[in-house]
Amino acid sequence: MHTGKPAPPDAAGAENRLVFGKNAVAELLQSGAAADTVLLSESMAAPQAGYYTALAKQAGAVVKRVPAARLQRLCGSEAHQGVAAWAAPVRYAGLEDLLAAAETRGEPPLLVLCDGITDPHNLGAILRSAFLCGAHGAVIPARGGVGVTGTVMKASAGAAARLPVARVGNLAEAIRALKKRNVFVYCADLGGESLERCDLSGPVALVFGSEGRGPGALVRKLCDGAVTLPMAPAGDAGGVDSYNVSVAAGIVLYDVMRRRHGK
Amino acid sequence: MHTGKPAPPDAAGAENRLVFGKNAVAELLQSGAAADTVLLSESMAAPQAGYYTALAKQAGAVVKRVPAARLQRLCGSEAHQGVAAWAAPVRYAGLEDLLAAAETRGEPPLLVLCDGITDPHNLGAILRSAFLCGAHGAVIPARGGVGVTGTVMKASAGAAARLPVARVGNLAEAIRALKKRNVFVYCADLGGESLERCDLSGPVALVFGSEGRGPGALVRKLCDGAVTLPMAPAGDAGGVDSYNVSVAAGIVLYDVMRRRHGK
Repeated sequence: MHTGKPAPPDAAGAENRLVFGKNAVAELLQSGAAADTVLLSESMAAPQAGYYTALAKQAGAVVKRVPAARLQRLCGSEAHQGVAAWAAPVRYAGLEDLLAAAETRGEPPLLVLCDGITDPHNLGAILRSAFLCGAHGAVIPARGGVGVTGTVMKASAGAAARLPVARVGNLAEAIRALKKRNVFVYCADLGGESLERCDLSGPVALVFGSEGRGPGALVRKLCDGAVTLPMAPAGDAGGVDSYNVSVAAGIVLYDVMRRRHGK
Repeated sequence: MHTGKPAPPDAAGAENRLVFGKNAVAELLQSGAAADTVLLSESMAAPQAGYYTALAKQAGAVVKRVPAARLQRLCGSEAHQGVAAWAAPVRYAGLEDLLAAAETRGEPPLLVLCDGITDPHNLGAILRSAFLCGAHGAVIPARGGVGVTGTVMKASAGAAARLPVARVGNLAEAIRALKKRNVFVYCADLGGESLERCDLSGPVALVFGSEGRGPGALVRKLCDGAVTLPMAPAGDAGGVDSYNVSVAAGIVLYDVMRRRHGK
């Protein structure tokens, strides 16, 4: 659906609504999510512009050619690659939707809980890995962490438009609710069980904490267990004690996927 | 070693020499790398300031208290966490040093080759994973990719100061040289062999390509094989076709580490 006029960048929802970069815009337009307007750089070559115009038409969005400088100003970065789109605001899912998605696929739930991830590149990369590894959704807190912004969308290569994401007022409450539904909640943390020894084959939610501090104390206490990624003896000796949070999430999710689907 | 005066931020080497953020500075000072001056925010609490002062003393660096606004200006970001350090310029290793490191540890070489990684957060996260997974070093190109800058150092949580990094004029030449030394060179790419089926137990170099385009055509051609990360059926159907490059590197490196060290 579109109004026939470009959606104006309103101050409040601007970051939530502008998606940019070739992959991210193509994914958005193909995902079935509502897009209002697609902005193409005037310097974009004809065949490529034709591709995005066709995608936009299919998605019911208006196409507008704009100077590259305007794209850069709108996106606040040079990473737009000549294309951006005003998307409808992200529609967050509910916790129940995530569990329902697992049921529909006939699989034990595999959920990712982000406890205060503040770097949009990390959140985007986590959502991307979650989607690729067959997770049924992600949960983020309404406060104390980044939401699904345009930068997150781009970093997720469009996965954020396809994976259901629930934004909850209270992550501890969400963990309690999941435990009541027989979901086993593991947090990634130091001093836990080695990944190889953890049984993540059943209904499971994986908690990844903020970049600096790891999971919060209450969240950690509520979890059924903690999973730790081992390191090589040489790495262990070095004083660098943890992986980047999006790398850690990718390693754990990949391992669950590998074991569930026998890849 | 230090001159007794804070190192001035010279335009040419500024980014290479300023390291910031608590973990990154602590790692730098403990790594044995030369640091000139440690800058602490005036608002840093006494016990914490005492900790960094002790580390600086041990490393032979001068400590200077500065307004937080100055740290922010120097670092160009708020991510300094109240502490920064002027480090000596990164001393890159040679390809031979990397192979010698493997020999010293009595292990088959495990190297990471970055083909045009442009995002410093990605390069930092890759170096961090490489270090933790027991790699003997990384190779980056002198052109067409980011070097070991302050942002890379911070994103690596200090691993960039501990893992030998060789910067080569020609990555294809480096691959040829490694092959002559019986190192098996695999690139991470679509359409290769599934990770589970690849035998990465011997001397191996893993090539990870740039964020947008993957490994270059010549590099790809020179490689002995390609490794592909499978995805879950649901993820496979979605149009998002690859992991973030630092996540992919983490997954492959972790897998090699797991199999080599039986973790």
